[in-house]
Amino acid sequence: MARFTELETYDVRFPTSLDLDGSDAMNTDPDYSAAYLILRTDAGDGLEGHGFAFTIGRGNDVQTAAIEALRDHVVGLDLEATLGDLGGFWKSLVHDSQLRWLGPEKGVMHMAIGAVVNAVWDLAAKRAGVPVWKLLADMTPEQIVGLIDFRYLTDALTPDEALAILRKAEPGRAEREALLLERGYPAYTTTPGWLGYDDAKLVRLCHEAVAEGFTQIKLKVGADLDDDIRRMRLAREAVGPDIRIAIDANQRWDVPDAIRWIEALAPYDVWWVEEPTSPDDVLGHATIAKAIAPTRVATGEHVQNRVVFKQMLQAGALAVLQLDSARVAGVNENVAILLLAAKFGVPVCPHAGGVGLCELVQHLSMFDYLAVSGSVEDRVIEYVDHLHEHFLDPVVIRAGHYVAPVKPGFGAEMDVETLTDFRFPGGKIWNDLTKENQ
Amino acid sequence: MARFTELETYDVRFPTSLDLDGSDAMNTDPDYSAAYLILRTDAGDGLEGHGFAFTIGRGNDVQTAAIEALRDHVVGLDLEATLGDLGGFWKSLVHDSQLRWLGPEKGVMHMAIGAVVNAVWDLAAKRAGVPVWKLLADMTPEQIVGLIDFRYLTDALTPDEALAILRKAEPGRAEREALLLERGYPAYTTTPGWLGYDDAKLVRLCHEAVAEGFTQIKLKVGADLDDDIRRMRLAREAVGPDIRIAIDANQRWDVPDAIRWIEALAPYDVWWVEEPTSPDDVLGHATIAKAIAPTRVATGEHVQNRVVFKQMLQAGALAVLQLDSARVAGVNENVAILLLAAKFGVPVCPHAGGVGLCELVQHLSMFDYLAVSGSVEDRVIEYVDHLHEHFLDPVVIRAGHYVAPVKPGFGAEMDVETLTDFRFPGGKIWNDLTKENQ
Repeated sequence: MARFTELETYDVRFPTSLDLDGSDAMNTDPDYSAAYLILRTDAGDGLEGHGFAFTIGRGNDVQTAAIEALRDHVVGLDLEATLGDLGGFWKSLVHDSQLRWLGPEKGVMHMAIGAVVNAVWDLAAKRAGVPVWKLLADMTPEQIVGLIDFRYLTDALTPDEALAILRKAEPGRAEREALLLERGYPAYTTTPGWLGYDDAKLVRLCHEAVAEGFTQIKLKVGADLDDDIRRMRLAREAVGPDIRIAIDANQRWDVPDAIRWIEALAPYDVWWVEEPTSPDDVLGHATIAKAIAPTRVATGEHVQNRVVFKQMLQAGALAVLQLDSARVAGVNENVAILLLAAKFGVPVCPHAGGVGLCELVQHLSMFDYLAVSGSVEDRVIEYVDHLHEHFLDPVVIRAGHYVAPVKPGFGAEMDVETLTDFRFPGGKIWNDLTKENQ
Repeated sequence: MARFTELETYDVRFPTSLDLDGSDAMNTDPDYSAAYLILRTDAGDGLEGHGFAFTIGRGNDVQTAAIEALRDHVVGLDLEATLGDLGGFWKSLVHDSQLRWLGPEKGVMHMAIGAVVNAVWDLAAKRAGVPVWKLLADMTPEQIVGLIDFRYLTDALTPDEALAILRKAEPGRAEREALLLERGYPAYTTTPGWLGYDDAKLVRLCHEAVAEGFTQIKLKVGADLDDDIRRMRLAREAVGPDIRIAIDANQRWDVPDAIRWIEALAPYDVWWVEEPTSPDDVLGHATIAKAIAPTRVATGEHVQNRVVFKQMLQAGALAVLQLDSARVAGVNENVAILLLAAKFGVPVCPHAGGVGLCELVQHLSMFDYLAVSGSVEDRVIEYVDHLHEHFLDPVVIRAGHYVAPVKPGFGAEMDVETLTDFRFPGGKIWNDLTKENQ
C-alpha cells in the first residue's frame, strides 16, 4: 500500500521589486514569492505533487511555516484512499479543530491548506495521466459535488442545486472540449498598466497588446486621480474604442472615494473596476456597484473564502468574480465558488499573474467552460507575462487565448534550478544581491 | 535616545485538552496557547512590553513565526517617538505592503500585529505608571481619534463623528471612574456550560455561579439538539427565571439550521445566541437575527477586523458585539470597534477566557465605560476561571464584577516560570507529558 512519505518546503522569492513590474497603488514594491512544497510517495512511479502559496515577499517564511505545520496531516496517509476521497481530505485539513482557530478559513493558514490541496491535485492528475482541467471535467456530477464542503453555503447553494447545474452543463461537453483544444480560452493582459511604468511605456505596451490579439487590457489606478485620468485617456487613444479597458484600484479607496474616482474615469469607457475597496467589505462593494452601474464591479483576488464570495453574490456586490487559484483552500473550494457563480449567473474572470498563478488558474476556467457554466461569454483569464520561464510547463498564449495545457498535472512545477537559486535567503540570486548591496 | 532593542518570542502551550475545560461544538480538544513576546529597550528603567496572540494549540508555532516576522518593524525604533505616535506605529505594521498580502488584515498575520501592538501598549502604560484603561481614558478625544486608521470606515464612521461621540462622553467621567473603582465592571461566567461537562457538573456549577453573584451564565450548544434542550432546561431550573442564560454555538450551523435550533431553545428564555454561523457571514447573521428576534445575536470573537464589524453593525446582524483583545490588531483597532459600536448604539460584551484574554480585555471595557459609551447597561465581560494563576497581575472577580486593575500595564505579563515550563515542545510540562505517553 503506497503512502505519502515526504512534504518538503521551499521559501522561493524573486527580486521583482528591482524593476517596477507588479507595482500598483497598494503593492508598491513586491518581490513575487512562492511558499512552495513537494509531496513525495513510496508508490515507485517517480511522481510528485507540487503546489505553492503566492506571496509578495516579506512573510513568505511565515507562509512556508504554515505549510510545514500541515506535514503530519499528509505524511503517512494512504495514497489511493486520499486521492479517492479528495473531499474528505480537504475537510481533514480545514476542520482541524486547533488549526482552525488561526483563521478560521482565512489568511496564512487557509492559503497553506490551498497549497497542500493543490499539490495533491497535481499528483492526482499526474497519476491519472491528464491535466487537472481534464481530470475535473471528466468527473461525474456526483463526484464533483463530493469535493465540496457545503458548510455555510446552503442558504445560497445546496448539493441538489449544484448537481442540477452540473447536469445542465453535460450536453455539448465534447464539442466544447474540441473547441477549447482548438482555440484555447480567452485572456486579457495587465502587462501595459502597472503604475510604475511611464506614459511612453504604457502606450507602447497598449499597442503591443492589441497587436498580439488581446481584446481587453487592464490599468492599475488609485494613487493619483489626475494621473489616472491622463493614463486612461492615453490607453483609450492607443487601443481604440473596441478594446475593453478594465481598471484596478487594489483596495485603495473608501466607499465614497471609490464612487467619486470611478465616475471621473467612466467617460473613457471602463469595462470593470477591480477591488475598489477592502476585499472584506461586501456591503461596501454593493453600495459602490449600485452607484456606478452600468460600470461593473469586479473582485476576488483577496476574497478569503467561499463564505465571502457567497455574500458578494447574494448582495449583488460584483458583476465579475475573480477567483484566485492560491488564495482559498485549493481546487475544492474553487469548484464551490465556480458553482456559486453559476447559480447567480455571474461570469468568472480569474485573477492571475504573480508567479505561477496563470499556470494554475487556467485549469479552473477550462473546467468551468466544460462542466459548469458551459460558456466563455464575457469570460477572460488575466495574463501577465512574468516569471513563466521558471516552470516546466509554462502557459502558452496564442492570439489572446490560453492554449489548453495537455501535460499531466496542474502546471505548478518549477525548475529545480529555480528552487535552488531563488531560495531565500541562502540561494545564489539572493546571495549575489546581498553582496551587491554591501 | 532610547530605542527598542529586543523582541523575544515564546511558544507557550497549556495541556488543557487533558480535561474538557474549553470544549465546545467546534473546538473539541483545545490546548490553550499563547504566541508570546517580550519587548525590551535600552531606556534603563527595567520596563518591558509583554503581549501575545491566543491560539488553541497546533499552529501556535506558525503564530509565533508571524510575530518573529515583525521584529525588524520594532527593534531599532525610537522609543519616545513610537509611544508618542501609536496611531502611526499601528499603520507602519498593518500597511507593510508585502506583509499585507498575507491577510490583508486577517488571520495569523493580523493577530501577530495585535500581539506586538498590545505589547507596546503594555510598555506605554508601565512607563506612564498607570493601567491601560486609565492611560486610554485620560487621553483627549483628539488623541484617541489619532490612534485609529479610518481607512474603510468612513462610510459608517468619520473622524468627526468619532470626536463627537468621545466629547459627548466627557461629562461625568470622574464620577464613573469612582464608581468603577468601587464596584468594578459586570461579568458573566462561561464556567458552567462547557459541552464536555456532564449534567451533574453543569447543575452544580450553575448553582455556584449564582451564589458567587453572577447574573448571567452561558452554555455551549450545537452538537446535539436533544442534549441542548435537556441542558438548557436543567440550567434554567438551576438558576431560576431572573438569571440571563446565553448560548454559544461556536459557528456550528448553517443559516437554516441556526434558525431551527434557536427556535427550539427559545422557550427556555435565551438572552443571546453567540456565533450561530460562520464569523465571516454578515448577511447570514442578519438573516438569523431577523428570524429569531427578539432573541439577540452576538458575535465577534472570530470577527477578523473592523471592516467586518462595521458591516455587522450596518446590516443589523448583531445586537451584542463581542470584541476580542487578541484577534484584531490590538488596542488601536479595538478603540475603532468600540466607537463603531457606540455609533450604532450596540452594547459591547467582550469575548474572554482562553489564556490571558480576561486580563487584557477588561481594560477595553473599562475605557469604553469611562470615555466612549459611558454605560454598563446590558454590558458584561465574559469570565472563565482558567489559567489566571500564570499571570503576575491576574484578574480579580468580586460579586460578579471585574475589579478594576490598578497596577501599571496591560496585565499581560506571565510568570517567568510559566514561560519556561510550558514552552512547547521543550518545556518541563511537555517533556513530562511526552514521557508519560511513551
